[in-house]
Amino acid sequence: MNVYLQRAVNVLTKINELASISEDPAGITRTFGTATFQQGSRVIQQWMEDVGLQTRIDSIGNVRGRLESSNAGAKTFVIASHMDTVVNAGKFDGPLGVIMGVDLVDQLVRSAKPLPFHIELIAFSDEEGVRFHTTYLGSKVVAGSFDPDLLDKKDDSGSTLSEVIQLMGNDVTQLPADAIAPDDWFGYFEIHIEQGPVLYERNVPVAVVTDIAGQKRIEITFTGMAGHAGTVPMTMRQDALCAAAEFVLEVEKLAATQVNLVATVGKLNVVNAASNVIPGEVSCSLDVRSNDEAVLMSAYQQLQQICLDIGHKRTVQVDWGLIQETASVACDKGMSELLEQTIQRSGYDVIRLVSGAGHDGVPISLVAPIAMLFVRCFKGISHNPLEHVDLTDMAATLQVADTFMKYLLEQ
Amino acid sequence: MNVYLQRAVNVLTKINELASISEDPAGITRTFGTATFQQGSRVIQQWMEDVGLQTRIDSIGNVRGRLESSNAGAKTFVIASHMDTVVNAGKFDGPLGVIMGVDLVDQLVRSAKPLPFHIELIAFSDEEGVRFHTTYLGSKVVAGSFDPDLLDKKDDSGSTLSEVIQLMGNDVTQLPADAIAPDDWFGYFEIHIEQGPVLYERNVPVAVVTDIAGQKRIEITFTGMAGHAGTVPMTMRQDALCAAAEFVLEVEKLAATQVNLVATVGKLNVVNAASNVIPGEVSCSLDVRSNDEAVLMSAYQQLQQICLDIGHKRTVQVDWGLIQETASVACDKGMSELLEQTIQRSGYDVIRLVSGAGHDGVPISLVAPIAMLFVRCFKGISHNPLEHVDLTDMAATLQVADTFMKYLLEQ
Repeated sequence: MNVYLQRAVNVLTKINELASISEDPAGITRTFGTATFQQGSRVIQQWMEDVGLQTRIDSIGNVRGRLESSNAGAKTFVIASHMDTVVNAGKFDGPLGVIMGVDLVDQLVRSAKPLPFHIELIAFSDEEGVRFHTTYLGSKVVAGSFDPDLLDKKDDSGSTLSEVIQLMGNDVTQLPADAIAPDDWFGYFEIHIEQGPVLYERNVPVAVVTDIAGQKRIEITFTGMAGHAGTVPMTMRQDALCAAAEFVLEVEKLAATQVNLVATVGKLNVVNAASNVIPGEVSCSLDVRSNDEAVLMSAYQQLQQICLDIGHKRTVQVDWGLIQETASVACDKGMSELLEQTIQRSGYDVIRLVSGAGHDGVPISLVAPIAMLFVRCFKGISHNPLEHVDLTDMAATLQVADTFMKYLLEQ
Repeated sequence: MNVYLQRAVNVLTKINELASISEDPAGITRTFGTATFQQGSRVIQQWMEDVGLQTRIDSIGNVRGRLESSNAGAKTFVIASHMDTVVNAGKFDGPLGVIMGVDLVDQLVRSAKPLPFHIELIAFSDEEGVRFHTTYLGSKVVAGSFDPDLLDKKDDSGSTLSEVIQLMGNDVTQLPADAIAPDDWFGYFEIHIEQGPVLYERNVPVAVVTDIAGQKRIEITFTGMAGHAGTVPMTMRQDALCAAAEFVLEVEKLAATQVNLVATVGKLNVVNAASNVIPGEVSCSLDVRSNDEAVLMSAYQQLQQICLDIGHKRTVQVDWGLIQETASVACDKGMSELLEQTIQRSGYDVIRLVSGAGHDGVPISLVAPIAMLFVRCFKGISHNPLEHVDLTDMAATLQVADTFMKYLLEQ
């Protein structure tokens, strides 16, 4: 058996073991700070110990394992992904990157070559943000950008983040000390499933991530005039749903004009809906993402104008509210080119992808150059028990990541 | 003061009195069979008594008052509307026709002219169908088309219609005896608010109803593929909401091509909606109405084909289900022409309207010629506390209805 395939089988065995540790025995759920989550943390910590890392669980619950360089003044290269999951998750989103990290570091330990930088493997405690409705708790602490105000956030049962940290046996006053200082970073590398269908459609196992898209989230309300579906002639209607429908199609049309733009109306609610009532009020969401800030801003402004024009034309009032925005993040050019060379030499087409989903690299990018490798997943399905990665793709990923680390160490 | 305006004031006083009898003191709600409903019935019965009618409350709770002709073999002419309301109703929908009927019959009693037919004034007990989710309970009994299976229907508290009838002190075995036999009908006349904006827009107080539209109600499900709003490129999406939005606009477009057609998507639900998830499943309703069966059927078939085509084009599965249909009902030509003449001689433009809403005339039309007079209401608003009819329009209506009755009696 191919050596990478054998390593992929070992990785999958660990992925399955971690997946068996779940708050819900009928699926996979491991949210930040629960007893189940802590059980998973200890398993990951043991794996890190087994390959020879110096391990600890930090104050936000990140599992961290270090392999020290003997060089004076060596910086730290972080290999990481997250160990928390959404509710009823797949088993690869997060754990794949963590456990492949264990395997990569295992190879480095075995090779016993001198390290020009320290290596730190991190399993971030919270990327999905399920419990406290805020993302990147773990990576924000490591990046030194954790906002202490978050400690007062409450979960659905009323427990604060501060209380949950203490229940895990950790000390909230130590959070700042768990950051890696900006000057100490060499770089950051994460392996993650694509969570989209491009690699599946193009039949390639891995891709290099060029950027993590910026995002704007908008909530819109269309207010027309409710009326009896049988008695108001078509010419006298102010149908809020027709206005919203026109907008949904304009969103789709505009996004289709740009390769590096996606736009989605995911929620749409007809207020006081009944089959025999002309909709008087409709609220909907709009999610717009691009890696190019100019494209994102232009799309945002165009869609707002289109929306207002639809309202004006139809005598339907439009209320447009921007409720969230994040800037796009570029991956490091040097490391990304190294990844591309590695992919090419491994015999695969080089596919460059913008990540439409957010990742821990977003907070880390403020203090360190970041690189990401995406792995094909079945039909792009994620956040779902049907999430799947082929063993041969895992083997290809290990081969590319191994070579990437080798080049990086030789630089 | 104009005599009709004075009568309109009297009618409005009674409308206000009936409106004050409500299950909910903050609004107007009188649903079939409640204690409040029975209190309203007794008030209406007393008004009928006061103008000299022989009254009774029949087994389905209709309030009925008769003015007998002395002619041997005389048939019965029914003047009616309904006394039940929707939840949080306006005060005119139903009561206007009942209470104007009291006023009309009062004039006939006062004139003491011989009657060629019996006159029966009826306040139907259930037209809205709020409590048992089935309409026309009262008029079906009078038309002799009441289906005994309805007696087992349950309200939201679990009481059957049969139990509610008994609680009202009535005898379900008497329901068939409360029908007016088909041979005994002379005709049927109802005054009702338009519940649409045409008279308001055209600035005319009354209109003659030519037909009550036929209706088809459809439920449609669009099933595409859910996905991450950030990671699935626009070209790879099977967005169920975009498919539904395209359909909503096609419905609007097709209905706009025909004067005697209305079509409405009133309900639309995105299943498992989230702002960052591409909609995978959307269900919606479609309500199509026309007085012309050929137009209705053609629109139905065209919309079904358009819907399937949208699904095919977008690789979105379409499930189309016809869940209810009623045939259109034509008003009697002779009586309607008489109404038109009356309107014209009263100095108003003759406006002929199709009723898009259903009325008690639908079941009655199976046994008797029917005629309906619509009254302008403010902006067409109905089923809403903002429902309003101007006093001058009520006066105009009384004048037209008075004259109509005079012509009818002279025929």
